[in-house]
Amino acid sequence: MTKNTLHDDLIVFDGLIISNWGGDVFDAMRKGGLTAANCTCSVWENFRDTMLNIGAWNRMLAAHSDQITKAVTVADIRRAKAENKTAIVLGFQNTSAFEDRAEFVELFKQQGVGIVQMTYNTQNLVGSGCYESTDSGLSDFGHDIVAEMNRVGMLCDLSHVGPKTSEDVIRASKRPVAYSHCLPHGLKAHPRNKTDDQLRFIADHDGFVGVTMFPPFLPRGNDSTVDDYVTAIDYVVNLVGEDRVGFGTDFTMGYDKPFFEYLNHDKGTGRQLTEIWDVEFPDGLESIADFPNLTAAMDRAGWSEGKIRKIMGENWLSLLDRVW
Amino acid sequence: MTKNTLHDDLIVFDGLIISNWGGDVFDAMRKGGLTAANCTCSVWENFRDTMLNIGAWNRMLAAHSDQITKAVTVADIRRAKAENKTAIVLGFQNTSAFEDRAEFVELFKQQGVGIVQMTYNTQNLVGSGCYESTDSGLSDFGHDIVAEMNRVGMLCDLSHVGPKTSEDVIRASKRPVAYSHCLPHGLKAHPRNKTDDQLRFIADHDGFVGVTMFPPFLPRGNDSTVDDYVTAIDYVVNLVGEDRVGFGTDFTMGYDKPFFEYLNHDKGTGRQLTEIWDVEFPDGLESIADFPNLTAAMDRAGWSEGKIRKIMGENWLSLLDRVW
Repeated sequence: MTKNTLHDDLIVFDGLIISNWGGDVFDAMRKGGLTAANCTCSVWENFRDTMLNIGAWNRMLAAHSDQITKAVTVADIRRAKAENKTAIVLGFQNTSAFEDRAEFVELFKQQGVGIVQMTYNTQNLVGSGCYESTDSGLSDFGHDIVAEMNRVGMLCDLSHVGPKTSEDVIRASKRPVAYSHCLPHGLKAHPRNKTDDQLRFIADHDGFVGVTMFPPFLPRGNDSTVDDYVTAIDYVVNLVGEDRVGFGTDFTMGYDKPFFEYLNHDKGTGRQLTEIWDVEFPDGLESIADFPNLTAAMDRAGWSEGKIRKIMGENWLSLLDRVW
Repeated sequence: MTKNTLHDDLIVFDGLIISNWGGDVFDAMRKGGLTAANCTCSVWENFRDTMLNIGAWNRMLAAHSDQITKAVTVADIRRAKAENKTAIVLGFQNTSAFEDRAEFVELFKQQGVGIVQMTYNTQNLVGSGCYESTDSGLSDFGHDIVAEMNRVGMLCDLSHVGPKTSEDVIRASKRPVAYSHCLPHGLKAHPRNKTDDQLRFIADHDGFVGVTMFPPFLPRGNDSTVDDYVTAIDYVVNLVGEDRVGFGTDFTMGYDKPFFEYLNHDKGTGRQLTEIWDVEFPDGLESIADFPNLTAAMDRAGWSEGKIRKIMGENWLSLLDRVW
């Protein structure tokens, strides 16, 4: 297949987008040939506020039904591809929406939530985060939540989770788990980046790694290019093989400083956790509309068509098919 | 078909049960040959507490999957009949669970809620109740809620609703609406009973009447028998014909006084609305297990098999098929 037509033919799955959802984002998704994405609809929100966010998604899905469609199965994602739509997988970056009730897990699954990160940066009822000073691992309630997520078919995401809690979830889960959007510590030392041992550990336990491109965690920061992103992905492929890797951009689109302030403060309004980065996305991949450039960069790097197909999306679909 | 086998062959649909859900109730449902019922899971509860009630239902559905199954379509109900299970239709007796957000309607539909009463005895954000001193009708927000219930396919129930609000809902709704459990004012004057004009009005607008047997609203009160119940049903059939009528017992099983106190106080803890009745269900129909006696009483009254089939459940299924 020629370079120009390959991207159009691919399943393109983004393991993490957190953007100011609306027409501009959906236009970019279609322009970029994005088949499906894990779309964050809860970060610090509680049960009710997260349900309101899902209510807002239902309204957007109805208003933009020519561009987007909700996906709760891999068949839904393949159908979206056939219909030239982008499939929306609702996801959380925290378990705050479950509050203190394990039965809320199934209620959210029923609303279409398919991917949930166990903690967001700090400690919660389930476990600890990557910016928490100590990590005593998965709590007993956290074990109940993992078991319930296993039962209903919801992917456990560990990207912002602390190292001990991550290890505990990987051991406890009866279904594969993932880092949906992370970078290798081997390329840059950072609390959010995962060591070679951590990457091998999740892969050895039937897990998955989605590689992110968030510039503060890349070696060259805001000077990074789409080719640096492909290099980072290849670093992980070289560690765990090409069947357990995908990408998860962490694209933020349409948000201003107040939203980043919200993300960077514990529970949204507490202590500040990190500096507020002035992020410039990699040259060549500055927007959700630019995904054809990612395929092109993989091709430039000498990747086979088969490897491109897997990393761009097929591996994600295999994983989700097994979890859901 | 002989009297003995007819009941076993029927679709038996109870338009309203509010009981202390659990194994005893499910045993009685199976013993009574109950195919499906509108099972109340919210009366005064807000959004979160109602979701918790549905979470509790999900646990019961899993624990008693040999006896009960959730129904969101009429096909689910017919499948339950074939599998010797009772289909659970989740229902509300109030719109308090929607709080002030129309988007919550769709979230509850997604959880399987198929029937919702617009008000419970008193005024709420949507309209007024049958025990409220004045009824200014359906509010503007109430119109939004009716439209949203129409859109997602949820039956508007008017049993405990005030007369003006009921009339407004009947006119506003683009889908058929119902009194799921009411008695005729022509048999006993009571604020909860519906006049001949009201019964004809809902029927003339493509609506439905489920006849209840709650003794305080029957002419002979606690002295009533299952034959008095059939007489009351026939009163309604004579008014609106045999295609728009079903039954809705209002069976309470397993509840003690504190629950009836909760029901009888505004918002659960406010002013007392009615006396706390000492209810004795009609002789012959004292338990959910006794439904074969209702079929037998209809037969004693000289009803045709076709009429029995319709009133016992088929009419309810026709209605729900059109609304859902």
